[in-house]
Amino acid sequence: MNNLKFKEKVDMDFVAIGRAAVDLNPNEINRPMEESATFTKYLGGSPANITVAMAALGMETGFIGRVADDPLGRFVINYLKSRNIDTSNVVVDKSGAKTGLAFLEVKSPEDCNITMYRDNVVDLKVEVNDINEEYIKNAKALLISGTALADSPSREAVFACLEFARKHNTMVFFDIDYRPYTWKSAEETSIYYNLAAEKCDVIIGTREEFDMMEMLTNPKNKDDYVTAKKWFNFNAKIVVIKHGKKGSIAYTKEGGVITGAVFPVMPVKTFGAGDSYAGAFIYGLMNGLSIEESMELGAASAAIVVSSHSCSDAMPTLDEIRDFIKNYGK
Amino acid sequence: MNNLKFKEKVDMDFVAIGRAAVDLNPNEINRPMEESATFTKYLGGSPANITVAMAALGMETGFIGRVADDPLGRFVINYLKSRNIDTSNVVVDKSGAKTGLAFLEVKSPEDCNITMYRDNVVDLKVEVNDINEEYIKNAKALLISGTALADSPSREAVFACLEFARKHNTMVFFDIDYRPYTWKSAEETSIYYNLAAEKCDVIIGTREEFDMMEMLTNPKNKDDYVTAKKWFNFNAKIVVIKHGKKGSIAYTKEGGVITGAVFPVMPVKTFGAGDSYAGAFIYGLMNGLSIEESMELGAASAAIVVSSHSCSDAMPTLDEIRDFIKNYGK
Amino acid sequence: MNNLKFKEKVDMDFVAIGRAAVDLNPNEINRPMEESATFTKYLGGSPANITVAMAALGMETGFIGRVADDPLGRFVINYLKSRNIDTSNVVVDKSGAKTGLAFLEVKSPEDCNITMYRDNVVDLKVEVNDINEEYIKNAKALLISGTALADSPSREAVFACLEFARKHNTMVFFDIDYRPYTWKSAEETSIYYNLAAEKCDVIIGTREEFDMMEMLTNPKNKDDYVTAKKWFNFNAKIVVIKHGKKGSIAYTKEGGVITGAVFPVMPVKTFGAGDSYAGAFIYGLMNGLSIEESMELGAASAAIVVSSHSCSDAMPTLDEIRDFIKNYGK
Amino acid sequence: MNNLKFKEKVDMDFVAIGRAAVDLNPNEINRPMEESATFTKYLGGSPANITVAMAALGMETGFIGRVADDPLGRFVINYLKSRNIDTSNVVVDKSGAKTGLAFLEVKSPEDCNITMYRDNVVDLKVEVNDINEEYIKNAKALLISGTALADSPSREAVFACLEFARKHNTMVFFDIDYRPYTWKSAEETSIYYNLAAEKCDVIIGTREEFDMMEMLTNPKNKDDYVTAKKWFNFNAKIVVIKHGKKGSIAYTKEGGVITGAVFPVMPVKTFGAGDSYAGAFIYGLMNGLSIEESMELGAASAAIVVSSHSCSDAMPTLDEIRDFIKNYGK
Repeated sequence: MNNLKFKEKVDMDFVAIGRAAVDLNPNEINRPMEESATFTKYLGGSPANITVAMAALGMETGFIGRVADDPLGRFVINYLKSRNIDTSNVVVDKSGAKTGLAFLEVKSPEDCNITMYRDNVVDLKVEVNDINEEYIKNAKALLISGTALADSPSREAVFACLEFARKHNTMVFFDIDYRPYTWKSAEETSIYYNLAAEKCDVIIGTREEFDMMEMLTNPKNKDDYVTAKKWFNFNAKIVVIKHGKKGSIAYTKEGGVITGAVFPVMPVKTFGAGDSYAGAFIYGLMNGLSIEESMELGAASAAIVVSSHSCSDAMPTLDEIRDFIKNYGK
Repeated sequence: MNNLKFKEKVDMDFVAIGRAAVDLNPNEINRPMEESATFTKYLGGSPANITVAMAALGMETGFIGRVADDPLGRFVINYLKSRNIDTSNVVVDKSGAKTGLAFLEVKSPEDCNITMYRDNVVDLKVEVNDINEEYIKNAKALLISGTALADSPSREAVFACLEFARKHNTMVFFDIDYRPYTWKSAEETSIYYNLAAEKCDVIIGTREEFDMMEMLTNPKNKDDYVTAKKWFNFNAKIVVIKHGKKGSIAYTKEGGVITGAVFPVMPVKTFGAGDSYAGAFIYGLMNGLSIEESMELGAASAAIVVSSHSCSDAMPTLDEIRDFIKNYGK
Repeated sequence: MNNLKFKEKVDMDFVAIGRAAVDLNPNEINRPMEESATFTKYLGGSPANITVAMAALGMETGFIGRVADDPLGRFVINYLKSRNIDTSNVVVDKSGAKTGLAFLEVKSPEDCNITMYRDNVVDLKVEVNDINEEYIKNAKALLISGTALADSPSREAVFACLEFARKHNTMVFFDIDYRPYTWKSAEETSIYYNLAAEKCDVIIGTREEFDMMEMLTNPKNKDDYVTAKKWFNFNAKIVVIKHGKKGSIAYTKEGGVITGAVFPVMPVKTFGAGDSYAGAFIYGLMNGLSIEESMELGAASAAIVVSSHSCSDAMPTLDEIRDFIKNYGK
Repeated sequence: MNNLKFKEKVDMDFVAIGRAAVDLNPNEINRPMEESATFTKYLGGSPANITVAMAALGMETGFIGRVADDPLGRFVINYLKSRNIDTSNVVVDKSGAKTGLAFLEVKSPEDCNITMYRDNVVDLKVEVNDINEEYIKNAKALLISGTALADSPSREAVFACLEFARKHNTMVFFDIDYRPYTWKSAEETSIYYNLAAEKCDVIIGTREEFDMMEMLTNPKNKDDYVTAKKWFNFNAKIVVIKHGKKGSIAYTKEGGVITGAVFPVMPVKTFGAGDSYAGAFIYGLMNGLSIEESMELGAASAAIVVSSHSCSDAMPTLDEIRDFIKNYGK
């Protein structure tokens, strides 16, 4: 049990809007990327990865966005389909925009970097007219990812999704996912993150991400509870603030404070931790688990994914997560 | 008496953010503009004109925005000063952006057009870092004009103003002022107008402007009361919907419906009606008049301005408005 | 007699490509422009003014370029027609581009400035497909103005004109007309001015303009003869280098060095001197006068124009120039 | 012996300006690219590949251009160094521009496609101020590649190279390398290709590329000799026109017409044929071989490269080419 009430009797459990991209992971790791000769391509992009995580857990999922009209775009859409994700609301963009690319670099498990290709990127071309009100009405939950707010017309498409979700009582999850390189300034980011957060039911971010959101109106605050309370005056019911290796804390509108479990492991790389966490955490909440149990699922899923070469391909099933928890530390 | 409660004991009555531009009015009128040989330059721009109207009525006023670093920018700032408007928050832009120009064309009193120069326009260069939280805290009322939402960074600067105004209980007036040529699409406009309107106490627009705002979430609605009620669920106390020559109707959060007076006159041109109306209406509300009396002031001020060659230069004093009303129809 | 041989038996004497714009001259002068209340509109733009000068001298002229689809564009095209200039190759641009504006400021006869509106300017929208090979073939002379090289697609349209002119033996005059504010860098300017100058028969510029052209390949040269000689290795027959009040010097491919007359006057403003000079000088060359006589016509025409309020409206007839020369100093 | 006379006693044999990029070749071929899971990264970009070809043949070479300040940029510069190519004139760009990417797709040996990443691409950021006059002066030959003319500031940098090369008698090779997707229009391409070709000593292109160059001034011509002759009136000594599988024909200023050898092979893919041809052909000319012998080297080098998985890595040595010719058909 938790404090969220989801709609019943709709077609879809979960839809996400935003970035579906390609990761190119070096096959030769623990070295500077320029010395890696070969790369494996995977689906990438935070909301796409979270959707894959949800699908791997057995949920009925769909994706809203744009893909390029080229082989990499076809790979993205084919991959989503192969994971049983509905792509009826994925538009093939004809403007010549390109699939976002992320070349990962794993110098060591703790020293990971990304070289991003985000110029004229197709995921930010999703527009208001791509958004189907019925699709959002027919989903129990909508996930928005902060990066989709970084530029027009995607920014406006996200706000349209939020309007439709509030109108039809679709639960909104906001994964802050702040990536400074996609934004013009921290001030601009702060403005749009706040406007979006006002419309969301569950907000998930790091302490640093919430600091960025408060830079204009409450720049000195470091108090999680003050941070969370602001959003309870709008539509939020749960605010999760992540403190890195110290773990995450969930605050509820009703005054609850829940500290999440952590499962330290030796990672292959740090990528994918946040997406796998979010996917399993949301799964838990949507399936009536307590917030504490949901956070445990999230932490276990993250531990599994950082131990793997990929993000999307490694998203675990519920059995795999349960097994991991059962066997952890043994 | 009306339903608005303004702060007391602050430095300033009224500040506005947005467009301060130059109108070039043909001296030879009632012909196509290409046949006009000489032009007179006036201050233009809706929020600047409303501020001039407020200043002419004796209010303590200030302006927030950017002006060009050239003779036309110096004209704008000098003109504001000459009307006793505080310009301490007007930034001289150094980027090479240009003062907006509006060449008016008066083919006949009813057939008026504008040729706008809005490329690289300086009024849309105002940015979040230009906004002084103290300045907004120290004003009883803030006016925002919809055109300032048309592009970044001005769009974000307006949202920063709204954040500060709500934080400090500064009353916010929203003059919708929709000018399609400054926007990429009606969908985009609708998104930002809605986000801004949620934060405002008084919203003033035409029926067509409210239709545009409702195009995504309530496209078939033509019912003023349905329109107004949406905003009372956010922060609005008064919503004024203008129906052209039929006059305006004000709706209040408390359920009031007030139909405004109209003063038909033979106009020289149609420009300036909305700005003079807004200025005198807000003046009335800020000075404890009833909504009905405030609307009468607005209508009379508009009738005076459309009978004149200019907008800004023609903004009347309170005595002139009172005289007009007393003598109207005699 | 001079060293240029023009085609015979073609329809047109002279066509120019480039900028046809609007000047807004303050009626109240000898003060900062911000203090001028009224402005008179005139045709502006160097190649348009030179064409007006040629037409005033009785030549068959035409113009190649784009005008805005608004009252100011209609003014430009109507004005050209009123001066008997063929506008069959003037395209009405539908992209929303704007007529270039020049607000003149005359603080004193020697202290004159311009505030330019050149963002999204229509004259730089002329494109290769606008250029009619037959039109250039059927003209004795083509004038190109350096400003038309400042950006694409106008830049490419000028090079297309040059290709056609060389192919059909149309005499090419190059008025360097360097205006730094229209260019990204001096290096870029130098590159394109050199590429264009290689194709021209007569090149007219100031010493400073030729310095800019030589900045990459001969940066220390100040020797006019070295400057001129470079172009005689390509297609040039005459190179005119202007030294401000000291007058101009014409160099010929055959080794001639001709110093031009000067007619000092008390000017109203400095604008228009170059255009009126170029127009009368080219007129002389096209009508079989010597270079010396042609330079005298140019200098007299310039003296007349700087004594007037406008540029285009003041372009003199041949009789007016002859009278001026006859009476000068009496 | 051939009709080119190269400078002696300079530091460098050959420098090229333009594109140094990354090719990502699928390891699983003969299928749509979206079905390829892994990719190998190679140096790509026509002028870079030609320079690698020259270096493999033992010439002293250097490269002029910009690389990204990221792992892919470091790969490019490290690879050039590893092939003994001087990189003292390769600038590390700090603007955030990206290494060009080419994802190859080999559906079958004859059905090969490329997905290009060319938005905000670093190779087009090379600018006039990057060009070192001494570097060009100290090279016997300069190669320019048409793609470097596709946008500013690279376009101007190429013209600066051409100015310096002509000034210092450095032999200029022009590899037309027309890639429509990098250009705004065929008209624009034609304009700049013609302006560049006027300055070049040897011009190499396909019949289709020369058709594009002639689209404005000689649109109906299909006669190779007419095409070649135009350039002999400027600076050209050799014009090579390629007719696909029918082979290439070289025209000389002195009237020579030389038909090149062809070595049909079963290719792995079609990529790299042009670059390897150009490299070996130029090598032959610079080493005193006849045009016919040089063309034979070029054709053999191309046959070797199309039989390999990569372009740059496969560039053959002189011995390998000689062996191939000796053994061909046996």
